Amino acid sequence: MPSSIIYKAIPDGYPIIGEHMEFVTREIDIENFPLVDGEILVKNQYLSLDPYIRSKMRNPEIKANLSAYKIGEVLDGYGISIVVKSNNKNYQVGDYYYTHVPANAVSGIECLAKEISKYKVHESYFLGLLGMPGMTAYVGLNKIGKPVKGETIFISSALGAVGQVVGQLAKIKGLRVIGSAGDDSKIKYLNEELNFDGAFNYKTCNIDEKLKELCPNGIDIYFDNVGGEILDVVLNHLNNNGRVVSCGMISIYNFKTPYGIKNLFQVIKKRLLIQGFITSDHYQEIDLFIKEMGELIEQGKLKYKEDIVKGIQNAPEAFLNMLTGKNFGKVVVKIFK
Amino acid sequence: MPSSIIYKAIPDGYPIIGEHMEFVTREIDIENFPLVDGEILVKNQYLSLDPYIRSKMRNPEIKANLSAYKIGEVLDGYGISIVVKSNNKNYQVGDYYYTHVPANAVSGIECLAKEISKYKVHESYFLGLLGMPGMTAYVGLNKIGKPVKGETIFISSALGAVGQVVGQLAKIKGLRVIGSAGDDSKIKYLNEELNFDGAFNYKTCNIDEKLKELCPNGIDIYFDNVGGEILDVVLNHLNNNGRVVSCGMISIYNFKTPYGIKNLFQVIKKRLLIQGFITSDHYQEIDLFIKEMGELIEQGKLKYKEDIVKGIQNAPEAFLNMLTGKNFGKVVVKIFK
Repeated sequence: MPSSIIYKAIPDGYPIIGEHMEFVTREIDIENFPLVDGEILVKNQYLSLDPYIRSKMRNPEIKANLSAYKIGEVLDGYGISIVVKSNNKNYQVGDYYYTHVPANAVSGIECLAKEISKYKVHESYFLGLLGMPGMTAYVGLNKIGKPVKGETIFISSALGAVGQVVGQLAKIKGLRVIGSAGDDSKIKYLNEELNFDGAFNYKTCNIDEKLKELCPNGIDIYFDNVGGEILDVVLNHLNNNGRVVSCGMISIYNFKTPYGIKNLFQVIKKRLLIQGFITSDHYQEIDLFIKEMGELIEQGKLKYKEDIVKGIQNAPEAFLNMLTGKNFGKVVVKIFK
Repeated sequence: MPSSIIYKAIPDGYPIIGEHMEFVTREIDIENFPLVDGEILVKNQYLSLDPYIRSKMRNPEIKANLSAYKIGEVLDGYGISIVVKSNNKNYQVGDYYYTHVPANAVSGIECLAKEISKYKVHESYFLGLLGMPGMTAYVGLNKIGKPVKGETIFISSALGAVGQVVGQLAKIKGLRVIGSAGDDSKIKYLNEELNFDGAFNYKTCNIDEKLKELCPNGIDIYFDNVGGEILDVVLNHLNNNGRVVSCGMISIYNFKTPYGIKNLFQVIKKRLLIQGFITSDHYQEIDLFIKEMGELIEQGKLKYKEDIVKGIQNAPEAFLNMLTGKNFGKVVVKIFK
């Protein structure tokens, strides 16, 4: 039974299930599903939930990198799919693919897909460590952060889909790695499992004092997943020539009046760089990325924490939990329970 | 009679003459002035007043690129000086030099100086068009702005020491050039004398509407000399991959609680770059800069508006006027009336 998450209305703040998005089921006849030349029919196995999806739930008149959803459209995301019918000689029935799909159980699509059957990792890793979030960590850290051995990096949302990869890659490059998250169990995991040099719960700490304590020599790179107040405090702790990798601002996506950043004069005082990016601008490097990451995985140098939600009907709630930081690691929906 | 501007106390807001800085005179015996080996004695002819001077009037515990002034110290700045006594074979009596000097009428200094006697422009140009502000415009526009023919640049404080150079260099490179300033006579000058493609008085306009009208295809480069509210509005008008050259934030230097920037999420939405810089990091290119600019001046392609204040005793008031935007062009103090 194909099931989808439908976009119903533009949310003002946090989306409300039933009002702004809804789970629906439809009938589909796989046997007689019409495929034009070049098309394939895939059955989605896993669906990735990522914060950027919220940014597409906006008034379409507001221009941005990613197009806005249209009312009534099926929400989309990165998925792991298996080919069930093919009218394209490059795609074989039974192969697993990593691609961008509508949040359907079954999609008739001709899309840029990456065959993953040949890799020895769990398929869902292609939604996180080896997928868009991992690539985001890789591109942001290397191309914007330009890390140098001995430097200090601070990562917010450090156990998120992107943050945990940034932290581990930075450790491998010889950086001092500090992270923040919003839950003590996450802090414990960052310290004990991922061997961060320090981590703190931003909800229960004085952020400024914690950064003073954990980054006594200042911060060289801030990998920013949240924006808002933490960014404002971090600006005061950045060293000369510091870099802010602007990856996400989950703290403000759901607020009409965002927090006002007051310390931006530090950009001039300390010759800082703040840069936003979009991972898809760098897809020409995806093979290099998968090769490098694959080797690190084989050598046991990369862990990846996933928060696997079972059943596509639970996707809307899991999405909301992610926006409020209740997930523990990368959020993946296993479409069939 | 050597005269100096002395730094007396850390100002909270705008410096107050007599309280935070003071004009004093001292006796100096030029004939018997002791010069150690390598030193020269120079008589300063022109002094440059620049906004960065305000940023040095701070609590020395606050670290930044430029060191803070000590209480009782003579304020310093870029100057045009004539050598009156030399104990250094590289510096001849009578030569004009462009260098960084204490705001004295006479200084005994061994410093990195650039001989300017051989150039055919007015000496004071070495404080503006061919000096630190011109170099700031050149470096900021080319190295951070990376202008491309056909793009649109918006410049705040567009008739300031830096802004007017940026605008003209951008016109030469084939950009559409829009500027703002705080006075209708400046707007007239930008439009009529510097041939900007548009200019507006930010004090009497709706900035958002004016940018919509004058930059119908959005802004590719924002050369930011003021920070604060204008930056916030501009963020909404920047195109994808837009660049913000963070050159100055004169709007906030004198305020304890700066304006909070609310639109920073545009950095992610549009893959923006915001970058601060310090001109002295790029001094290895000063000869190339002077050559390129010199040629443009010879070809009549660059104008430069100076606001020349006569008498060093008038420097404190001129400095204040610059901070509040009352100057008309680059502020230069002719030390002797």
